Amino acid sequence: MNPTFTTGLRRKNIRRRSNAPVAAKKPHDVIPPIGDGIRIIPLGGVEEIGKNMTVIEFGEDIIVVDAGIQFTDAETPGVDYILPNTKYLEDRKERIRALVITHGHLDHIGGIPYLIGRLGNPPIYTREFGALLIQKRQAEFPHLPPLNLRIIDVKDKSSIPITSKLKLRFFGLTHAIPDSTGIIIETPYGDIVNTGDVRVENEGGVPVAKEFEQYSIFKDKEILLFTMDSTGIEKPGFSPSEASILKNIDKIVSEVPGRVIIATFASQVERIVEFIKTAKRYGKKIVIEGRSMRNNVEIIKHLNLVEVDHVIPVDDIEKYPPNKIMMIATGAQGEEFAALMRMSNNTHKFIKLNRTDTIILSSSIIPGNDRAVAKLKDNLYRHDSKIITYLDTDVHTSGHGKRGELEWIHKQIKYKFFMPVHGHHYMLKQHAELARSLGCPAENIIVPDNGSIIEIRDQGKTFVRLKEKAPSEDMVVEGLSIGDISEVVIRDRKMLAEDGIFVVIALVNTRTGHLKKSPDIIARGFVYLRESQELLSEARTIIKRSIESTSVGMNPINFDYAKNAVVEDVSRFLFQRTAKKPIVIPVILGV
Amino acid sequence: MNPTFTTGLRRKNIRRRSNAPVAAKKPHDVIPPIGDGIRIIPLGGVEEIGKNMTVIEFGEDIIVVDAGIQFTDAETPGVDYILPNTKYLEDRKERIRALVITHGHLDHIGGIPYLIGRLGNPPIYTREFGALLIQKRQAEFPHLPPLNLRIIDVKDKSSIPITSKLKLRFFGLTHAIPDSTGIIIETPYGDIVNTGDVRVENEGGVPVAKEFEQYSIFKDKEILLFTMDSTGIEKPGFSPSEASILKNIDKIVSEVPGRVIIATFASQVERIVEFIKTAKRYGKKIVIEGRSMRNNVEIIKHLNLVEVDHVIPVDDIEKYPPNKIMMIATGAQGEEFAALMRMSNNTHKFIKLNRTDTIILSSSIIPGNDRAVAKLKDNLYRHDSKIITYLDTDVHTSGHGKRGELEWIHKQIKYKFFMPVHGHHYMLKQHAELARSLGCPAENIIVPDNGSIIEIRDQGKTFVRLKEKAPSEDMVVEGLSIGDISEVVIRDRKMLAEDGIFVVIALVNTRTGHLKKSPDIIARGFVYLRESQELLSEARTIIKRSIESTSVGMNPINFDYAKNAVVEDVSRFLFQRTAKKPIVIPVILGV
Repeated sequence: MNPTFTTGLRRKNIRRRSNAPVAAKKPHDVIPPIGDGIRIIPLGGVEEIGKNMTVIEFGEDIIVVDAGIQFTDAETPGVDYILPNTKYLEDRKERIRALVITHGHLDHIGGIPYLIGRLGNPPIYTREFGALLIQKRQAEFPHLPPLNLRIIDVKDKSSIPITSKLKLRFFGLTHAIPDSTGIIIETPYGDIVNTGDVRVENEGGVPVAKEFEQYSIFKDKEILLFTMDSTGIEKPGFSPSEASILKNIDKIVSEVPGRVIIATFASQVERIVEFIKTAKRYGKKIVIEGRSMRNNVEIIKHLNLVEVDHVIPVDDIEKYPPNKIMMIATGAQGEEFAALMRMSNNTHKFIKLNRTDTIILSSSIIPGNDRAVAKLKDNLYRHDSKIITYLDTDVHTSGHGKRGELEWIHKQIKYKFFMPVHGHHYMLKQHAELARSLGCPAENIIVPDNGSIIEIRDQGKTFVRLKEKAPSEDMVVEGLSIGDISEVVIRDRKMLAEDGIFVVIALVNTRTGHLKKSPDIIARGFVYLRESQELLSEARTIIKRSIESTSVGMNPINFDYAKNAVVEDVSRFLFQRTAKKPIVIPVILGV
Repeated sequence: MNPTFTTGLRRKNIRRRSNAPVAAKKPHDVIPPIGDGIRIIPLGGVEEIGKNMTVIEFGEDIIVVDAGIQFTDAETPGVDYILPNTKYLEDRKERIRALVITHGHLDHIGGIPYLIGRLGNPPIYTREFGALLIQKRQAEFPHLPPLNLRIIDVKDKSSIPITSKLKLRFFGLTHAIPDSTGIIIETPYGDIVNTGDVRVENEGGVPVAKEFEQYSIFKDKEILLFTMDSTGIEKPGFSPSEASILKNIDKIVSEVPGRVIIATFASQVERIVEFIKTAKRYGKKIVIEGRSMRNNVEIIKHLNLVEVDHVIPVDDIEKYPPNKIMMIATGAQGEEFAALMRMSNNTHKFIKLNRTDTIILSSSIIPGNDRAVAKLKDNLYRHDSKIITYLDTDVHTSGHGKRGELEWIHKQIKYKFFMPVHGHHYMLKQHAELARSLGCPAENIIVPDNGSIIEIRDQGKTFVRLKEKAPSEDMVVEGLSIGDISEVVIRDRKMLAEDGIFVVIALVNTRTGHLKKSPDIIARGFVYLRESQELLSEARTIIKRSIESTSVGMNPINFDYAKNAVVEDVSRFLFQRTAKKPIVIPVILGV
């Protein structure tokens, strides 16, 4: 019980959600009315990867681009998703004319079920693949009103009038999911272009012909404002081409001695289409494993994107020799209940792995999933199956262009103003540097934060950021509730996760001030109680002494005073004995 | 309150600590007595990165190599460190003749304060730098008996007799900290070699002369058993050389317009020594920031590894022009209270960053730290300082050799048996494949798990793994306690972190069965209570109804029955209303 012992301990501190400079929570700015300029407000996606949403406002009209979610991490225990803050839009919802979707990934569409009502249920402009994904997701919320979806065919080059002043055009570009789209909003002062997420298909760093064609619409034009995905900016050069990935996987599939199992993100829809073709080429049957994978293959089937007559149900797998089977599965990130993880840990109902299986992890490791992926690989290696990852061969490429790709896109589009979007702040700053290095003057570039109010004024001549900001605190989905994140609740959860809770219940005779019986203790997440009987017994003595030293002889008893005394004494005792700081809750009842 | 709403929720499941196949906890194996063979038991470090410890046993004698810790993650909330399970050794502690240390990193020495007593305080054989780090750490536990340190000079090539049958030799090799050491244990049947952590300094993939020299002692010999670090096996080729890293940093330092701040791991001691020389070369003063960094520089100073007369205290920084200042700081991983993070978020007492500062992050990102590092970079970019990371220029190389380096080491040492150590299971399997591809027969390779009992029998002719295992469940340090991990407590902590706790307190009149007053509710980490008054009020009604429907008219009252009813009714109600599942604790007191 040497108290100096505690100096040897690593006391973990409860981390605030942000390490940014501390600022007192202030009332929201009074935002000046819009003048005759164009207002652009990124509400999400510019201080993080995820929850993309950008507002374009002109006169009496607002167009919103994307409505994404962000996934949570250890900093937000108990939270399901993080949403962009839509308060600015809620206050102006009668002006919202359209929600426009760049593509069907959750960081661009995932917020729709939670937010569309708050935006006044505006029409949603999207291409077909996105529309199907949006509907699939909406079907999980059957109590919500139907969506007003307007499906745009990108082949139709004409502009869609949204209001008398604002028109909308889509242009095809390359990402990782069918119908990925860049958006052009035509304004009286010029065009605003938002690429959404984008990469450039290339052969050894040279863009393929299709890429030149996709951007040819910008030839000999100057657009007003260019905004673009920044997530890949840190990595130099070009990504491996999707074609080379498919070629490598084709070769592996052609040579495997037994079954081949390809695990990838269900969102990598374009690649999944190609896998289905590959199987056909080698006369293999396909099994689709994992709910999100099956959902997306259903959409692929619905759109006739590829022949799927060789897809078989998993329980038919034994009807074919192993080398005639290809599986496409979820779980490349080591997700606990995903198909590949279940196969790896012997809990899959139909599939037992063996040494003749070849498993391709056609994915990168998403930051934060490293341990889970290591565990997955450990499990797979226990079956002595052959495992192929991006470290062995190029079997994955990102949907987000690297710096070389971004630079090439900049060179295809002549723009006046530039605003980098999608990415952490440092990525946006790096993207701004890239634009500067390519000749864009510093005063024509703004690196926004969530909620920054940016205006193009003077008929398109100046580009300014207001000192006022739109509300931008994260909103969260937690169970059935959608709302502000409660820092108090999050902090409690972190404390509970570290040191647990210690509830003290005492009945006090209000006449004498003595305890009616030995106090009760309820602890969870603190220490293993069965092995701590002595600690509990001493704690009871301390509780009794602590309360009675206050309450005996006091009439009436000041219960708050007694409670404070117990919390202080018990906390000190527990810390001395365990070096842990559980939340101590006193329940003192007078009878 | 449409219950189908819940289908749209992502209900997070509480992940078990391991996704490996579920096995019932079974009593420990009865381990057969050692025969005339040599027994090797890795107790840690072979199913993870961290907590290295290997047992070598022969006749009546045991030598233990390393005593490391592993850092914890989200899977073990509230735990400070994870330790190897030493039960096998505790049962045989009178036979332990030596703890031998390969080098002074915490995954090799960090367990000493917690474990040395359990091992019967054997002498610790270590080189000087490791000894100083061990002493520094031990000083934080002043109640422990002094260590019996035996400092070995690697220049002394003679073997150290540990027992009449076992001798010990050290050989120098390259890692990331001074005095990194390979260990040779001489047995009657041949030598056992353990490299500890190792890399190969090289020029463009060609090992430098020093490397050939270090391994020359193995020329024309065959050793019995080779065990080696596997952590870098996944990455092909050779790492950039430390010399090239230093050259790049030297160039940056020579060109900066203002201050230069280099952040790296305090454990990268060899590199820190070189940084101190670099500053001297350019006439710069050095400020050392961060406790662990200052500790290690003190040791560097104590050993006269480099001239340090240009190291100045941080509050003298204003006495020199900015371009005469170099800082070496902790915090490259975005650790919340480390020096660089404090500078970045304006909470550092003396240092305010500006646009003339150049910051070099001479480190990689440790898996799991991605978000923290992104936040650090965001903060740094807000000061418009220049930031250089390994993505821009080679300013960091790992202390763990990549596959090419490991292969080269294999070729320097002729061995009969091979056992890969240090790394996840899949890394060890890949390392085993490498050994096989280099000609080692499969039956001469064993990939161990923690607790695997491996024996070299028949005077060194056969290499077998027993079916019995030594106890290998993780032990944990938590506050002042060291012991088994309690899955119950960990599971509670994870549940508390997700959904919080909901404590119900009711006083029941034992005569009538009615509640004496409206029940009390204490909730933490559940929902924000100030905004949930209606929910609480309804919950009180349900609690009252639930208890009284049981207790009224029952004499004597069955309190367990009433408690079960409350837990069930309240849990259902809260889930219906919030889709959250807090731990519900009923406190029902009869008065």
